[in-house]
Amino acid sequence: MLPERLNKVIHLLARLPGVGEKTAQRFALFLATEAGDVANHLGAELTTLLDHIRPCDRCGNLADYDGTAAICDVCRDTRRDSNLLCIVARVQDLLAVERSGAMRGRYFVLGKLLSPLDGIGPEELPLERMINRIREDKVTEVIVATPPSVDGEATALLVARELEPTGIAISRIASGVPHGGDLEFADQITLGRAIDGRKAIDG
Amino acid sequence: MLPERLNKVIHLLARLPGVGEKTAQRFALFLATEAGDVANHLGAELTTLLDHIRPCDRCGNLADYDGTAAICDVCRDTRRDSNLLCIVARVQDLLAVERSGAMRGRYFVLGKLLSPLDGIGPEELPLERMINRIREDKVTEVIVATPPSVDGEATALLVARELEPTGIAISRIASGVPHGGDLEFADQITLGRAIDGRKAIDG
Repeated sequence: MLPERLNKVIHLLARLPGVGEKTAQRFALFLATEAGDVANHLGAELTTLLDHIRPCDRCGNLADYDGTAAICDVCRDTRRDSNLLCIVARVQDLLAVERSGAMRGRYFVLGKLLSPLDGIGPEELPLERMINRIREDKVTEVIVATPPSVDGEATALLVARELEPTGIAISRIASGVPHGGDLEFADQITLGRAIDGRKAIDG
Repeated sequence: MLPERLNKVIHLLARLPGVGEKTAQRFALFLATEAGDVANHLGAELTTLLDHIRPCDRCGNLADYDGTAAICDVCRDTRRDSNLLCIVARVQDLLAVERSGAMRGRYFVLGKLLSPLDGIGPEELPLERMINRIREDKVTEVIVATPPSVDGEATALLVARELEPTGIAISRIASGVPHGGDLEFADQITLGRAIDGRKAIDG
């Protein structure tokens, strides 16, 4: 029913996360009938995107690539505490931690989580690069901010074990009932962790 | 926090219908970190998309453009009843009617609806092209399938008035409680229309 070229675009858009064929068709028809300027600009930007951005050479965050090196904004920022390192799974998680405003150090992006079921073992994680980074920056404290899932916990344990010989202080972000959340609707694992992770109330 | 080039892509993706900044960022990070092939292919396709598709010269549906003419699949299909014409507002609506399998004729896409509040008057609708099409194809029956909204009804009335002198049979798609819908949850206008549009039961 639709031109072949448009079907190709629909097929590609349907690969975006959370986008099905129907939404992809809606996007494609919008680009083709209402927003030709967006189609043209997006086309031009996407065509050259991967030539101009790279994972940061130091931390794995996304960075502008100038042809020789890619250093991200966080690694360039000299006001940050380089002795404090937060380890995350993905760039998205780095952005989420940044939004919280609670992290004044730098980051290291693992890129993936340990996942025996998907065949991702320790050798697939950039542990050597992580340790080099920690040595170079004379990091004294590491916060592991992998997600509180089975894979995230396994990865956190692996990171902690790798860093044990260095004697660096290692912590894991707290898991519990979210701020504003209702105990009634919290699942039992979350509530169990909230109780396990309880803190003394300073009177 | 993110490279300037990626922010541009996020900004453009956020113009897609129903996509906010957060979803656009999710799409962009997916393209930049996980699916470089999709980014490259989509970039190439979008860059040349508008050079290769056009509204069909005859009906306004999207069609492959070969450099001189654009005739869509529906208009090319000789098995269709060219005396029956379905008038729709958008290409999306044409596709929806096609999916129903209930239309064996051809289509005419208005491109927009009459909307006094948005300053869209009768002169903005392709009424002359519509009438020419009806004359050329010797159309004997017109089904107006604009949506059952205020603008859709106003447009249907306008189309009917324009076609009155031709003496062609003109009908409007039925409005009522959707198939599988619950009367309890139908709004009062829908239920009112369902009653107004009641049909005799053949015993």
